[in-house]
Amino acid sequence: MGGRVAFWFEFASTYSYLSTMRIEQMAARAGVAIDWHPFLLGPIFHAQGWKTSPFNLYPAKGRYMWRDMERICARRGLAFHKPDPFPQNGVGAARLVLAAQAGAQSPDQVGALVRAIYGAQFGNRQDISSPETLSQCLIAVGLPVALLDLARSDEIKARLRQQGDRASALDIFGAPSFVVNGDLFWGDDRLEQALAAAATV
Amino acid sequence: MGGRVAFWFEFASTYSYLSTMRIEQMAARAGVAIDWHPFLLGPIFHAQGWKTSPFNLYPAKGRYMWRDMERICARRGLAFHKPDPFPQNGVGAARLVLAAQAGAQSPDQVGALVRAIYGAQFGNRQDISSPETLSQCLIAVGLPVALLDLARSDEIKARLRQQGDRASALDIFGAPSFVVNGDLFWGDDRLEQALAAAATV
Repeated sequence: MGGRVAFWFEFASTYSYLSTMRIEQMAARAGVAIDWHPFLLGPIFHAQGWKTSPFNLYPAKGRYMWRDMERICARRGLAFHKPDPFPQNGVGAARLVLAAQAGAQSPDQVGALVRAIYGAQFGNRQDISSPETLSQCLIAVGLPVALLDLARSDEIKARLRQQGDRASALDIFGAPSFVVNGDLFWGDDRLEQALAAAATV
Repeated sequence: MGGRVAFWFEFASTYSYLSTMRIEQMAARAGVAIDWHPFLLGPIFHAQGWKTSPFNLYPAKGRYMWRDMERICARRGLAFHKPDPFPQNGVGAARLVLAAQAGAQSPDQVGALVRAIYGAQFGNRQDISSPETLSQCLIAVGLPVALLDLARSDEIKARLRQQGDRASALDIFGAPSFVVNGDLFWGDDRLEQALAAAATV
């Protein structure tokens, strides 16, 4: 029916990894188009007084999250390693995705880049704050390494800040989040509901 | 196969309502027995510096939760009203469930009582801190109203405190939680996984 889902993801977010690795296949099956929205949770967390991930602030919740991720990845056949340090700094990765979009790459290429970066971090123990890692991801998906320069431009930096403002305006408080026609769905567990909503819009 | 799931619920918890209304049917289908564990989240939240529900402390998360509950209850055909005030005081209700268990009521009767109390609160706008509400719930499920006296005894008060200690020892940080063979599952979204784990133990 031509519906759309806005997929809001933060590269440091473990549950965003889960959604990234399945959203394209599921959206295609539902006939739904994906708008890829990288953003940073840091400013949103800071605004509510958190200086780091809630999984670090609340140890029992953190221990549970790692166990939950381990179980879910095992069920889905996904590699999963705990990044060290956690959370990783995903600013450069988020800017790179915006640069790819500004560079008029197709949504499929953007999706492939996002998957490559999450795979490097959670599947392959790589540090996504490193330009070398990001460069390898670009090469792996056939995108120009020059996008790294664009990613460092003032234009793209401003665009990432705007993404944060848009996320706040949408009442987004965590990741992954999905927005369909202004309606918010939070967490990988709500991906099915979000796509169903988009398919019937 | 005779597996068991320990179901840890807090009467003030909205998502515990969701699990309560479906766990018995699902557990029966999976051949899994339920151990009913009322407990209080208050002391656990206080220990991490929260003076009220995180849904009140973090407004965007709170707004989302009410919308999420509304959508899920509509899908499941469950009545749902926002309790006022929220969270409700569920101490008396939790003690009443422990009294029913101490009074050697069958798990099915305990389950019926738990469902009646959640239904009164979230389906019928009743105040579950009121003895009248709890008394009506007992009558509705054919249990003796005298259990209210037992619920006020020192023995049952001590038992509820012990439940809190057990919950902490199990690393429980929210509700609903499910424990299968020492493995923790958190949230109504994990009920299926917990029952599958219990069925294969």
